[in-house]
Amino acid sequence: MQTPWEYRYAHRTQKMGSSVIRELLKLTEQPDIISFGGGLPAPEVFPVKEFQEACNQVLTDHGAQALQYSTTEGYLPLREMIARHNARYSAQVNAENILITSGSQQALDFIGRLFINRGDYVVVESPTYLGALQAWNAYGAQYISVRADENGMIVDELEAALRIGPKFIYILPNFQNPSGSTLSLERRKKLIELADKYGVPIVEDDPYGQLRYEGEHIPSVVALDSRYRNENNGEYSGNVIYLSTFSKLLAPGLRLAWVIAPTQVIRKLVMTKQAADLHTSSFNQHVAYEVAKGGFLDEHVKVIRATYKERRNVMFEMMEEMFPPEVTWTRPLGGMFLWGRMPENVDAAEVLKVAIERKVAFVPGAAFHPNGGGANTMRLNFSFSSPENIREGITRLGTTLKEALKNGKK
Amino acid sequence: MQTPWEYRYAHRTQKMGSSVIRELLKLTEQPDIISFGGGLPAPEVFPVKEFQEACNQVLTDHGAQALQYSTTEGYLPLREMIARHNARYSAQVNAENILITSGSQQALDFIGRLFINRGDYVVVESPTYLGALQAWNAYGAQYISVRADENGMIVDELEAALRIGPKFIYILPNFQNPSGSTLSLERRKKLIELADKYGVPIVEDDPYGQLRYEGEHIPSVVALDSRYRNENNGEYSGNVIYLSTFSKLLAPGLRLAWVIAPTQVIRKLVMTKQAADLHTSSFNQHVAYEVAKGGFLDEHVKVIRATYKERRNVMFEMMEEMFPPEVTWTRPLGGMFLWGRMPENVDAAEVLKVAIERKVAFVPGAAFHPNGGGANTMRLNFSFSSPENIREGITRLGTTLKEALKNGKK
Repeated sequence: MQTPWEYRYAHRTQKMGSSVIRELLKLTEQPDIISFGGGLPAPEVFPVKEFQEACNQVLTDHGAQALQYSTTEGYLPLREMIARHNARYSAQVNAENILITSGSQQALDFIGRLFINRGDYVVVESPTYLGALQAWNAYGAQYISVRADENGMIVDELEAALRIGPKFIYILPNFQNPSGSTLSLERRKKLIELADKYGVPIVEDDPYGQLRYEGEHIPSVVALDSRYRNENNGEYSGNVIYLSTFSKLLAPGLRLAWVIAPTQVIRKLVMTKQAADLHTSSFNQHVAYEVAKGGFLDEHVKVIRATYKERRNVMFEMMEEMFPPEVTWTRPLGGMFLWGRMPENVDAAEVLKVAIERKVAFVPGAAFHPNGGGANTMRLNFSFSSPENIREGITRLGTTLKEALKNGKK
Repeated sequence: MQTPWEYRYAHRTQKMGSSVIRELLKLTEQPDIISFGGGLPAPEVFPVKEFQEACNQVLTDHGAQALQYSTTEGYLPLREMIARHNARYSAQVNAENILITSGSQQALDFIGRLFINRGDYVVVESPTYLGALQAWNAYGAQYISVRADENGMIVDELEAALRIGPKFIYILPNFQNPSGSTLSLERRKKLIELADKYGVPIVEDDPYGQLRYEGEHIPSVVALDSRYRNENNGEYSGNVIYLSTFSKLLAPGLRLAWVIAPTQVIRKLVMTKQAADLHTSSFNQHVAYEVAKGGFLDEHVKVIRATYKERRNVMFEMMEEMFPPEVTWTRPLGGMFLWGRMPENVDAAEVLKVAIERKVAFVPGAAFHPNGGGANTMRLNFSFSSPENIREGITRLGTTLKEALKNGKK
């Protein structure tokens, strides 16, 4: 007889659905569609030659080690390099504060597994990163949404949320995905004080922190938290779990990211990772270290910044020219996304259907709001498409939007 | 104030411990210890030159694709190659039956996440693979142990277990980790019939199936299940979820494995993976495909077999010569491990302490028994150490064992 699989699944996965974005992206994979939907880095900036040299070097010098099983924590020289780099622009940490993960999505999953009991609350910005919601939905999280503006989470509204007793606060302080907003220095300090007052940890997700195209760098929340606690050089033992990644600086195809946290949290995350996938690819860790160890990333990030800044500016200019005046958008100072807002009565999902017919795509904003709302919003990516494609794509989208607004499409 | 992290953790992770084996292996990492404790492939057989060529080729031809985000299911040419290869020696499947995972440990974790509610029973062989227990403990699994002998699980005792209503049966049919036993053809058929009778799925974990050093290949359980259902060429839709890996054939440092299952189960596993880590490294999938696509593995596996067979034989000979007669062991026809049994009153964990002083190590067997027992058993790996080290290590271990038995150590 056939196995009735659907009656075998656990509660946590019976209603599990595929990501709205991933499913949308499949629709937009036709080569003639200009997609602002994904969150892909520009492949033109991948340092292919440097990877070739690094692969050769690693296999010549450390082949047996790079191809073998390795420790769950991650390759020590890579962790030490991240600690040194972090000490320069962020908190003083050492290798014991660092775990290498297979992309930041895995770090989000592990944080969910480590902290979230079914029904636990997590404080998020509204809108917030969809991948985090997906990871934590699997553990039965509920969300308390705090409103955000161009300066990030409206921290004055955070205290009411903290009094509900959430497990942690999740925040993307720099050039947030999806909105592009950046949390101001003043709000970062207030966030740290409030989190300390209520004893609620902060999960700081920072994939884009180094992709700033204008204005001054603002210290990360983990760095400010370290200062707030008067920590000196050495081990970090504060209230923040910090995530960052090589996906935006080097290449997402490596699946390499890292977590910075107090050592006792790292030890728990290591046990979680042991049971989940033993360790992250030894080979990729060696290759990333080989590419980065001589300071290559410091130069390379300038190339990325220049490329994305140009693309962002082209998108700004074209939107100014082509979009109907009723549509507004954010002006991110960095990162990969901007956020558009249509009149309340326009449904972005309906607009997308027409847009796809016109061979242009974006992501409707509703899915980024865990507690509803945002049906009239949209996320646009400016890192992936060439300036020519951005010009053409925004022209197509402008026409679509004008039409939708004229029809009062709902 | 300090964050009281220990009160923030979820139920599932509050009592989570580190793997006994991983902790033991740390003890044995001193370079002068001969360790039969780990489960490492011989680094001498890693095809370093082929990797170098493949990395260069992939980056030259497909750099932008191999370094970019990719689909959760895995790289299509790799999945098609696995389907073709599997059709040759196992079940007829197509790419829709296949998911690429970051090592088999990740597949075990996903299976736990997809199927196990807290308190659900899983039928396992006793002893069974420790990594599976670790993965499923996180989801609150309980275990029904079925005894095993040199021909694998004693299937005559399975029916009583199935009447309890377990979620699935977990079996390692070939050269089992830890015992080295292989499930006979007759028992495989009986297993399939019983599983079908009670509607209980089978999870077949087969990392070593191609590492046979003598005797005839026995068809995999998934292949026999496909025949049992009279499936013809095409999509597999039976009762088995099959796991295998490139870790033993190519290199574990890549973290590349695959799941074969009915498409509806693969679709659920894909959603699980989306939320857990988006996808397995695109680069590593491209490189593995590049190394393997021309049939290299067919030749390479012969080198691995010859190497491990020699090491196994040296270990057999030395044990025969050096071990006290009260100690018995299995004679695996393949794989990487054999299983020793001391008199009931001897505790392998105590013997290990003395062994480490004598600079030799193994893994005590108790941890492989989810419901207790096996304190007098031990797992020995023969793939990693050179023949010279096996000679010296077994000599040291023989002395340790003779002493332990003489002392009646408990």
